[in-house]
Amino acid sequence: MRPAVSPEKIDHVGIAVKNLETAVPLYRDILGLSYLGEETVDSEQVRVAFFRLGEVKVELLEPTSPESPIARFIEKRGEGIHHIALSVKDMEAELERLAEAGIRLIDEQAKPGANGARVAFLHPKSTLGVLYELCQFEGMVKK
Amino acid sequence: MRPAVSPEKIDHVGIAVKNLETAVPLYRDILGLSYLGEETVDSEQVRVAFFRLGEVKVELLEPTSPESPIARFIEKRGEGIHHIALSVKDMEAELERLAEAGIRLIDEQAKPGANGARVAFLHPKSTLGVLYELCQFEGMVKK
Repeated sequence: MRPAVSPEKIDHVGIAVKNLETAVPLYRDILGLSYLGEETVDSEQVRVAFFRLGEVKVELLEPTSPESPIARFIEKRGEGIHHIALSVKDMEAELERLAEAGIRLIDEQAKPGANGARVAFLHPKSTLGVLYELCQFEGMVKK
Repeated sequence: MRPAVSPEKIDHVGIAVKNLETAVPLYRDILGLSYLGEETVDSEQVRVAFFRLGEVKVELLEPTSPESPIARFIEKRGEGIHHIALSVKDMEAELERLAEAGIRLIDEQAKPGANGARVAFLHPKSTLGVLYELCQFEGMVKK
């Protein structure tokens, strides 16, 4: 059974890095991704550098404080892939459907994320160790 | 400076799971991804289930032996995201360019991967903790 609501694509992959000064040249000049820009997301205490890779964005996440979730992730597991963000068209319907299916939600309601998106995280304990973010942009609201 | 050769898109994200019997229903019926099929890759000692998510595939990797690299990954870090595969058009040129730029290669020459691709891994020590795979399909050879 395919659920009626489901993600359209991967919006971005989030990667935890200690500092963007080292990471941005690696991704732009050596791996060869298209650099899009940077933004600070105060609610998550991160500075984010964005790259384009086909229809997916790569987000490099540098903690701006030792209390940032990204700082704690790096302390525990080292630099590396932090989360996968799924692009959804109807955040509320998707969160309700997933909760009913037994998925544990970190965010029961969407909160502001980078690039003006509304985002909500699913708990990796209920998704076999993968931290998934749901991500909806204003232009994609369908009511 | 943008390198002359660079990846086109993410071909797939590889996710280590203990068993596909639990993981496939989560991805297909709850997260809502399109199930494509399964394949055993003897060289990597894994059974792989494929899903479509926009232009990207999600590969769930179940170890078929305790000596599988995926079994060792799960033992050390638990289930979760294992690697990101970048689609390239000219494997040999890309490997040469990356090695010259100081990237450490796990595979100096491409080897057979899933779906008939030729694949080669980059060492995460030189890519800030992310295991990248380069991936080329026959139809994409440009000589």
